[in-house]
Amino acid sequence: MKLLIPGPVSTDPAVRAALAQDIAPWDDDTRVMLARLRERVRALAGGVAGEHVALPLQGCGHFAVEAALRTFLPPGGRILVPMTGAYAQRLERLARESGRHPVLLPVPDGERVDEAALLAALEADPTLSHVALVYSETGTGVCQDAPRLAAAVGRLGRRVILDAVSAFGALPLDVSALPMLDAVCFTANKCLEGVAGVSFSVCQTERLRACVGQAGSWSLDLSDVHATAERNGAGSFRFTPPIQVLAALDVALDLHAAEGREQRLARYTANMRVVHEGVRALGLRPFLPEAVQGPVVVNVHAPEGAWSLNGFVAALKRRGFVISNFVNTTEPGFRVGCIGAITPEDMRQAVDAMGEALSELGLARAA
Amino acid sequence: MKLLIPGPVSTDPAVRAALAQDIAPWDDDTRVMLARLRERVRALAGGVAGEHVALPLQGCGHFAVEAALRTFLPPGGRILVPMTGAYAQRLERLARESGRHPVLLPVPDGERVDEAALLAALEADPTLSHVALVYSETGTGVCQDAPRLAAAVGRLGRRVILDAVSAFGALPLDVSALPMLDAVCFTANKCLEGVAGVSFSVCQTERLRACVGQAGSWSLDLSDVHATAERNGAGSFRFTPPIQVLAALDVALDLHAAEGREQRLARYTANMRVVHEGVRALGLRPFLPEAVQGPVVVNVHAPEGAWSLNGFVAALKRRGFVISNFVNTTEPGFRVGCIGAITPEDMRQAVDAMGEALSELGLARAA
Repeated sequence: MKLLIPGPVSTDPAVRAALAQDIAPWDDDTRVMLARLRERVRALAGGVAGEHVALPLQGCGHFAVEAALRTFLPPGGRILVPMTGAYAQRLERLARESGRHPVLLPVPDGERVDEAALLAALEADPTLSHVALVYSETGTGVCQDAPRLAAAVGRLGRRVILDAVSAFGALPLDVSALPMLDAVCFTANKCLEGVAGVSFSVCQTERLRACVGQAGSWSLDLSDVHATAERNGAGSFRFTPPIQVLAALDVALDLHAAEGREQRLARYTANMRVVHEGVRALGLRPFLPEAVQGPVVVNVHAPEGAWSLNGFVAALKRRGFVISNFVNTTEPGFRVGCIGAITPEDMRQAVDAMGEALSELGLARAA
Repeated sequence: MKLLIPGPVSTDPAVRAALAQDIAPWDDDTRVMLARLRERVRALAGGVAGEHVALPLQGCGHFAVEAALRTFLPPGGRILVPMTGAYAQRLERLARESGRHPVLLPVPDGERVDEAALLAALEADPTLSHVALVYSETGTGVCQDAPRLAAAVGRLGRRVILDAVSAFGALPLDVSALPMLDAVCFTANKCLEGVAGVSFSVCQTERLRACVGQAGSWSLDLSDVHATAERNGAGSFRFTPPIQVLAALDVALDLHAAEGREQRLARYTANMRVVHEGVRALGLRPFLPEAVQGPVVVNVHAPEGAWSLNGFVAALKRRGFVISNFVNTTEPGFRVGCIGAITPEDMRQAVDAMGEALSELGLARAA
């Protein structure tokens, strides 16, 4: 069974095998692995040793994003949120319920953030200390040019929290060139091709020290995650970590290093193209034109006829492919994840399976 | 290698095998598994269908405890915390940094909570709406009679948040008889013999509804976890769950059901007795007398001579047993976890290994 969802992704058998062991988290050998893992994640982000750190946090990507918002914004702090889709909406809610003040910047559905509008909003309101950006919107499939937008925000003296959950490990990022980034947040189970259970934030040590004490949550305080690692070693955890998930990520990082970030992006992009072209050949319409279609997930409009997403998902599953049984778009359709341990050949087979499924369900398709 | 630590514990091979698979969290089959798992956990706590729910939360036990404090206490709410050891200290910090007001009740080191003193403190301060209790202190090894203390607190009209992290699944608990319990918090990786990565809180649906909106954190809001499950189904998650960890727990619950809660407690108690008697036969002194020694972890004073915890841990590891390389007590010593997929026979071999390790290190032991 291949998972064609925008995470948790299909994994390599070696990654899964690493899960199946008993591990003592505070064992000296485990500490060596955990310290190495943090260094590898930092380096992958372009972080400089001593200046940047990778901070693991138990849980999911949203926990990392809330932790970043709490750590770097004081209570009542104001942050501009370009409303790029479902994950921007979640970011807005995480900020609001944490007692921070999100200010919304409308973005038309399926479009990229307009840089001029973003900068104009910041210039009009000097109380906005931060911008929150979603690098890859798994709701729509649109990816922003996050490094370019962050740099522009930085030129106005504002800071950025980047939700790179479904981007990190594939889309380009070099935090050493982006000093306005307070945090880049992501998880093990998307483009890093590990499994779900741990998130990371890559941050600057100087900023972490400057922001001690404002999180209003011990669990979600990145400054304390950092301070504890400084005190007890980079292989330590404050609270029990999901240690099997971390061991699997260590193997996943070996595979990432062997493939290379650019080659991984090229593979995902090739996966996306097979789907984008394949569904069009089946007579279906992708939501996005190729110009803004990111490599992570392809949203496709429902075909004419009596559409049932659940029926289509079940028909595909009988053929060995699992796609999401929900969408984050208002119009009906389906979405196909292009990330994970899957290849363009897998995607060709998936497109064939989609054609068969449409026929089986009696839905319109091209000859 | 056997893990003799108070969690994460040694697991059954079937539990580990369940980790090694790709799983789509929102797949219809997965939802059935997740909904069943929640029901099983609720039933294990003695919860009544429709009145109680088991709320899973990504992460670790401390996240569940902070979520419970945030959900059931308003900002500034006052909670009495009997200071039973390291985990009570953590609970106090979780409450304080969440903007709640913990009030400390001193408890002498290695003793149980004095019920009369607890009740007197509550009677003296009617603003204390809650008591936070640690059922099993893995710092010292002392277990409280939590059901009895909770009942007494309830008779004064106050409510209880119970940290049952290293107790749940072995020590007795019946939430249906304890209506003053707002939350019982625990994890998959202790007496349930799963792996780390997910925590649970068992709560009353009525209280969850009454406490909507005061958590001050979307991530750590148990009322929202419940409301989302009500809306989207008990097999749904708000955010990506550690799905392999949950699949492994489902298998671990099969094993728990086959063994039975009382039999599991009997096995752990037998494990503890082998260690408690075994180390005394080696000329060592346990921290606790048998009268207050709980079945979860045995703390042992360092032997006479040039004691090095790390040296002892390494010598035991060479013999196939991993114990903690840190202690939560002020005096030097070591601690031996008695929970997990381990038997009294394993413990006898571990005691033999301790004897050999002491000899190897030239430390005093009885003939």
